Amino acid sequence: MLDVEAALAQAEADAGLVPPPAAAEIAAACQVPLFDMSGIARRAVAAGNPVAPMVRDLTDAVSAGARPYVHLGATSQDIIDTATSLIAHRALGVVLTDVATVADACAALSEEHATTVMTARTLLQPAVPTTFGLKAAAWLVAVDEARAQLDRVRSERLAIQLGGAAGTLATLDENGVDVARRLAERLGLAEPVMPWHTDRTRMAELAAALATTAGVLGKVARDITLLAQAEVAEVAEGEGADHGGSSTLPQKRNPIRAVLIVAAAERAPGFAATILHAMVQEHERAAGAWHAEWETLRELLRLVGGAGGHAVHMLSSLRVDPARMSAHLRSDGGLVMAESLAHRLSREMGQGAARDVVRRCSAESLERRVPFADVVAGDAEVRRHLTDAEIAAALDPAGYLGSAQALIRRARAAHREQP
Amino acid sequence: MLDVEAALAQAEADAGLVPPPAAAEIAAACQVPLFDMSGIARRAVAAGNPVAPMVRDLTDAVSAGARPYVHLGATSQDIIDTATSLIAHRALGVVLTDVATVADACAALSEEHATTVMTARTLLQPAVPTTFGLKAAAWLVAVDEARAQLDRVRSERLAIQLGGAAGTLATLDENGVDVARRLAERLGLAEPVMPWHTDRTRMAELAAALATTAGVLGKVARDITLLAQAEVAEVAEGEGADHGGSSTLPQKRNPIRAVLIVAAAERAPGFAATILHAMVQEHERAAGAWHAEWETLRELLRLVGGAGGHAVHMLSSLRVDPARMSAHLRSDGGLVMAESLAHRLSREMGQGAARDVVRRCSAESLERRVPFADVVAGDAEVRRHLTDAEIAAALDPAGYLGSAQALIRRARAAHREQP
Amino acid sequence: MLDVEAALAQAEADAGLVPPPAAAEIAAACQVPLFDMSGIARRAVAAGNPVAPMVRDLTDAVSAGARPYVHLGATSQDIIDTATSLIAHRALGVVLTDVATVADACAALSEEHATTVMTARTLLQPAVPTTFGLKAAAWLVAVDEARAQLDRVRSERLAIQLGGAAGTLATLDENGVDVARRLAERLGLAEPVMPWHTDRTRMAELAAALATTAGVLGKVARDITLLAQAEVAEVAEGEGADHGGSSTLPQKRNPIRAVLIVAAAERAPGFAATILHAMVQEHERAAGAWHAEWETLRELLRLVGGAGGHAVHMLSSLRVDPARMSAHLRSDGGLVMAESLAHRLSREMGQGAARDVVRRCSAESLERRVPFADVVAGDAEVRRHLTDAEIAAALDPAGYLGSAQALIRRARAAHREQP
Amino acid sequence: MLDVEAALAQAEADAGLVPPPAAAEIAAACQVPLFDMSGIARRAVAAGNPVAPMVRDLTDAVSAGARPYVHLGATSQDIIDTATSLIAHRALGVVLTDVATVADACAALSEEHATTVMTARTLLQPAVPTTFGLKAAAWLVAVDEARAQLDRVRSERLAIQLGGAAGTLATLDENGVDVARRLAERLGLAEPVMPWHTDRTRMAELAAALATTAGVLGKVARDITLLAQAEVAEVAEGEGADHGGSSTLPQKRNPIRAVLIVAAAERAPGFAATILHAMVQEHERAAGAWHAEWETLRELLRLVGGAGGHAVHMLSSLRVDPARMSAHLRSDGGLVMAESLAHRLSREMGQGAARDVVRRCSAESLERRVPFADVVAGDAEVRRHLTDAEIAAALDPAGYLGSAQALIRRARAAHREQP
Repeated sequence: MLDVEAALAQAEADAGLVPPPAAAEIAAACQVPLFDMSGIARRAVAAGNPVAPMVRDLTDAVSAGARPYVHLGATSQDIIDTATSLIAHRALGVVLTDVATVADACAALSEEHATTVMTARTLLQPAVPTTFGLKAAAWLVAVDEARAQLDRVRSERLAIQLGGAAGTLATLDENGVDVARRLAERLGLAEPVMPWHTDRTRMAELAAALATTAGVLGKVARDITLLAQAEVAEVAEGEGADHGGSSTLPQKRNPIRAVLIVAAAERAPGFAATILHAMVQEHERAAGAWHAEWETLRELLRLVGGAGGHAVHMLSSLRVDPARMSAHLRSDGGLVMAESLAHRLSREMGQGAARDVVRRCSAESLERRVPFADVVAGDAEVRRHLTDAEIAAALDPAGYLGSAQALIRRARAAHREQP
Repeated sequence: MLDVEAALAQAEADAGLVPPPAAAEIAAACQVPLFDMSGIARRAVAAGNPVAPMVRDLTDAVSAGARPYVHLGATSQDIIDTATSLIAHRALGVVLTDVATVADACAALSEEHATTVMTARTLLQPAVPTTFGLKAAAWLVAVDEARAQLDRVRSERLAIQLGGAAGTLATLDENGVDVARRLAERLGLAEPVMPWHTDRTRMAELAAALATTAGVLGKVARDITLLAQAEVAEVAEGEGADHGGSSTLPQKRNPIRAVLIVAAAERAPGFAATILHAMVQEHERAAGAWHAEWETLRELLRLVGGAGGHAVHMLSSLRVDPARMSAHLRSDGGLVMAESLAHRLSREMGQGAARDVVRRCSAESLERRVPFADVVAGDAEVRRHLTDAEIAAALDPAGYLGSAQALIRRARAAHREQP
Repeated sequence: MLDVEAALAQAEADAGLVPPPAAAEIAAACQVPLFDMSGIARRAVAAGNPVAPMVRDLTDAVSAGARPYVHLGATSQDIIDTATSLIAHRALGVVLTDVATVADACAALSEEHATTVMTARTLLQPAVPTTFGLKAAAWLVAVDEARAQLDRVRSERLAIQLGGAAGTLATLDENGVDVARRLAERLGLAEPVMPWHTDRTRMAELAAALATTAGVLGKVARDITLLAQAEVAEVAEGEGADHGGSSTLPQKRNPIRAVLIVAAAERAPGFAATILHAMVQEHERAAGAWHAEWETLRELLRLVGGAGGHAVHMLSSLRVDPARMSAHLRSDGGLVMAESLAHRLSREMGQGAARDVVRRCSAESLERRVPFADVVAGDAEVRRHLTDAEIAAALDPAGYLGSAQALIRRARAAHREQP
Repeated sequence: MLDVEAALAQAEADAGLVPPPAAAEIAAACQVPLFDMSGIARRAVAAGNPVAPMVRDLTDAVSAGARPYVHLGATSQDIIDTATSLIAHRALGVVLTDVATVADACAALSEEHATTVMTARTLLQPAVPTTFGLKAAAWLVAVDEARAQLDRVRSERLAIQLGGAAGTLATLDENGVDVARRLAERLGLAEPVMPWHTDRTRMAELAAALATTAGVLGKVARDITLLAQAEVAEVAEGEGADHGGSSTLPQKRNPIRAVLIVAAAERAPGFAATILHAMVQEHERAAGAWHAEWETLRELLRLVGGAGGHAVHMLSSLRVDPARMSAHLRSDGGLVMAESLAHRLSREMGQGAARDVVRRCSAESLERRVPFADVVAGDAEVRRHLTDAEIAAALDPAGYLGSAQALIRRARAAHREQP
């Protein structure tokens, strides 16, 4: 908020409304350590916001000649909204750096494990083979989409606010629009078409982009908690000895970064809903809905900032176990290859008949707990159409990956085009 | 969903995977009246979604030769997600038309009432004068921002889904990417980088854009309910005799369009939060979170569609009462002009002294219930600095509108640039 | 709503305000099939709710002598709110029956599997042994707590609404309170202290109880999706051949009831938040927030009703695999018994030293991928303190269950005390 | 958390598991100032919660003989959940005191203004007369209902948590249930049937009660912001000179307490939704959903605590203006008495005809802007049935209040029965 008061005085000096020495004096006084924070907080209740007491203290801190130029033409909401944009701009800088690192880590995993076959799981059940590289590529695309949203909000939508008491810029006479433009330039924020005191689309877009980012990171983290289950054990967080340990359970290796990211994803939608709800703001300044934004946006920025940082650690140190991935594909004698076998057989005997045969073999494997490959190998109808080598090929996960490599290449190419 | 199955068969015919007559036969069979909806609904429980029984019925409906080509290479989620995009694409077409009409109505009001002075209200208290045109211009900018979001989501983010059982497009062998491209072209939807079965950023952006639109319309509607209060009565909904009447209270003129829009804005954030929350989807298909999207998106589209329609009626028939607006500015002898008087006086006696004088006059007016203008006219200190004419000018709302006209022009110019 | 109009006329006849024949005639006319639903829906927009056109049609449907007694003393909100209570009362009856069946199923599982040892999992990692009976007992307690809430809301909080135009019951003169009491009696709903047109605590409690129930069922269902993973496979849904199958993946056995319940639990909180938000209702009838309740409560009732029904099927047919549960406890040579061994050793060598020894053995087992039991058996320090039999006892899951049986008994006892 | 560790050691001493001097030493060491908070916070990341490092520091702080008894039998979640209950218990004590004061203030207003006639407003439009006392009585009932919920949650549902690593209380052998009972007694919290590590109904009920309270206070506050509008001005916040002032608008008297309460009510539902959503917790400890509760509950307690405090100030100092209330009832010549006149006329000419006459008079008054009383006085049909005195009586607000006094008495009687 002090940075905004400083920039406002300087922008008004640029516009010829404030003597440059007064602007310089005001800007010099806008230093956090010079202010009594808890005193301002206490006095904020009567005014309904902290700007009024802060401006009083700032006015007291400058010489009599500069006083008339403090907070000139602004209303409390101008300062708080512009400060919110400024804080969000800075915070999103950090978040974007972390999210870019996360995307790069996904890209690296997608390349390194492009052909590392593993089980694709739908509704938490084995479906068909995929590769860990394709899984990482899907994470990559999602992360890059979230990044694009954050980036757009940061560069286009975080704007200064300057409207005066009720959006007419009345005390700046004819100079309001000019001062607004200069203020935006000074702060590196967007210049709005007009004051947006009760048009909260900007805050809604910020909150939505942050919650979307939390959702994307939460999806990756949820996958990792599932892959890290002892019964699956295909990946593990790898930050070293103490990480994820338990004081009482010495065998524990909790995927704690993933857990904390999932927790963030659990919380973000509630904050986004609050911001979306608070868009219904009365007349020229809301009686409550605006005030509801303040802590909500702060918490949301902190939450996604934290999640981004955890994600960097989680993915940078991720340990992948291709052998376990491969072993799971072979469990139950390759039941996960049932669709592949049906696909191969349908060339010989038609789709309907092929599905019937494979459904019969699958059921027998499941019910009698006999490996699928063994059932298939002993099935007269299958053998009538396919040789041993053809059966083996149809049950080979590496041979049933469809467009996996092409899709990985597309994801990586799209990633390289990200700014 | 049937449109998607039809387009899929045709796209696969284009790609040379399906004989054109088979594709034509399948497409011809994809007619809603030919299907038993409640039967499909009943059988949907066992499969967990309606695609499986629908595909069975579609397969039964075509000749034996076409059967292998029904639903070729697709999984249930491909059909449901593409259908969701398609439905949203169509629904957003309607919403965008309505929202454009709303924006035009705001633009017209901003022009017609550019100089209609009225009270700007902050925290539901009179602040300074503004014009109804500026208020409408602020609505206009917000509506146009929501439109831009909806438009971007519609043209860039609503995409086809095609991934097969788990995103590898395995049963289409090497042709998956090509079929996906052709499917997108046929349906007029975006082509994604890769399947997005568990990357739900697209649905999150759709939900956020819709909830933002509800919020923007809700803000306008809330303002109208407040301006329509009998004690304010500056605007009224004007749809004629029956509209907003009450069976038992014959004097009632309820702003019922505004009320229904506010109700929509109350509900939209909960839906958006559900979609944002449901982004955390497991592996290659979620065990519940995906299913949570279906009715949520449908309800959200209906809700915003309804709100848009109500808003068209509300704004097209809005009755504005400039005389009441003007009267409120004069109530209490123009107390709302206190800032203006202080601004004028500060040129003569400095800001601090000017504020002190005006604060004294304001307090006297409020406490003694004497018109502000009378208190000011009788104040020796004011009279020492200002003539009667100067006082009258400082208390004239039309003379204290700052950049109102420039801002209205900016809003209207930005509106004209909207696609 | 027609049931409410009928009961109102009869209650007013009871109170001597309406001639009994007129009340009887009105009640007889209150039959859904006699009304044109879509016509009422269409005309509802102008009035802002469907009561006004419905009352007009009802009035037209009775003889001239009965007409003055239709809807006597009531306002639209009286009818809609009472109807909402009535519908919720009926729907909760169904939900409570299902939830009681679910609780009984949990109780049966807790008894049958009281000593079926399995792995307790924290943060999705193996922790210590537990029994499936204790897990089912924990589900039982949660389900019974949700039941108690639903039951309390149903019997104490679902109330009639009768206030007239604005809560004064003015057109009933002195008889309002008496009519309200009689109306409550007739409908089997609670009698409120006074009209609650804009006191929405009742609706908030209803929504919270429903969302809590969805959360409880969602927790059980999430556990089942996790236990049903192919890599865990400790339980399965058991509804027969078609259930959870996939058209293209013949090996699939999706836990589809659990998935649909999880989907319900994803959606319920958004509805609850909408109802909680809508509590801020203006003056004597809200301009939008009340209208936001209607579909929200209907959807929430349907959602929880559906989840309850699915849960009955899911739990009644649940297949439990004690052998798999036991096998998981033995995997990695019983690493999950590390705490148990440390607990046993601490009696001999003190807690700190015991933990150090066990931590060392755990780390060695994990890093060298040697079964924990083997590492322990070869550890000189362990052997110095414990005999082979003592080691075996410390590594026996059945011997490290603490208060499991006592807790199961407590849960079952509490269940028997439920009304 | 330290209070919980102290009570646990003491409860275990009571149960004979810990030597009393060791328990005393541990309890004495459980002092916040003795711990390095930021160090614990920093180390909390690796463990995923702050209990592990806190217990390590506590263990280091006691003598070797006491160390084995620190945190005996507990897991991190036992400490955090019990501490959450304890903090909530204390915080609800404060909230309940404030809410009781608010209820008493409403009760006093309902008595003082039992016969202060004012306009009842529905959909923000004048409906019929009511009294400010009845309005305050409706607030009273809502506040008392919220109180009852808070009170029930506080006394019955805030419970200790003690389950050990995964809910079996294994390291306490047979003594777990006994220790749990003693711990509950020592802390004044409820004793649960069994550990509730992943049964979060208690937290859901806490969150719902808090959000309901926020909603109730928000409703009162919203009414006050509306009644305080300059154009209505029937009430005002009365905390003195500085309160609600604006630095730049000297005439401002913002209802700032009400605004801050409305802001709290805007935010609470999002928190409640997060807690309801987080009920879906995996197995014996959740991988994220539990962690999502921590800050959410803290913020919700702070928010409602703040709102309660503001409400005490707002209502204790509320200034009511019966003259303005009365004046509004007379505006437009008493249009708000239309229903009353129709009610009176229907005795003479039947309901249908009476409504037609009054609808005609209302429309004429509204369209020609002639006072309603004048239109009525000049209406031949009205005069045919009613004398001047009868017309005056029908247009007298004080004569058309129905059961207002009886309802106020009921609300106050119910209030007196609150514990």
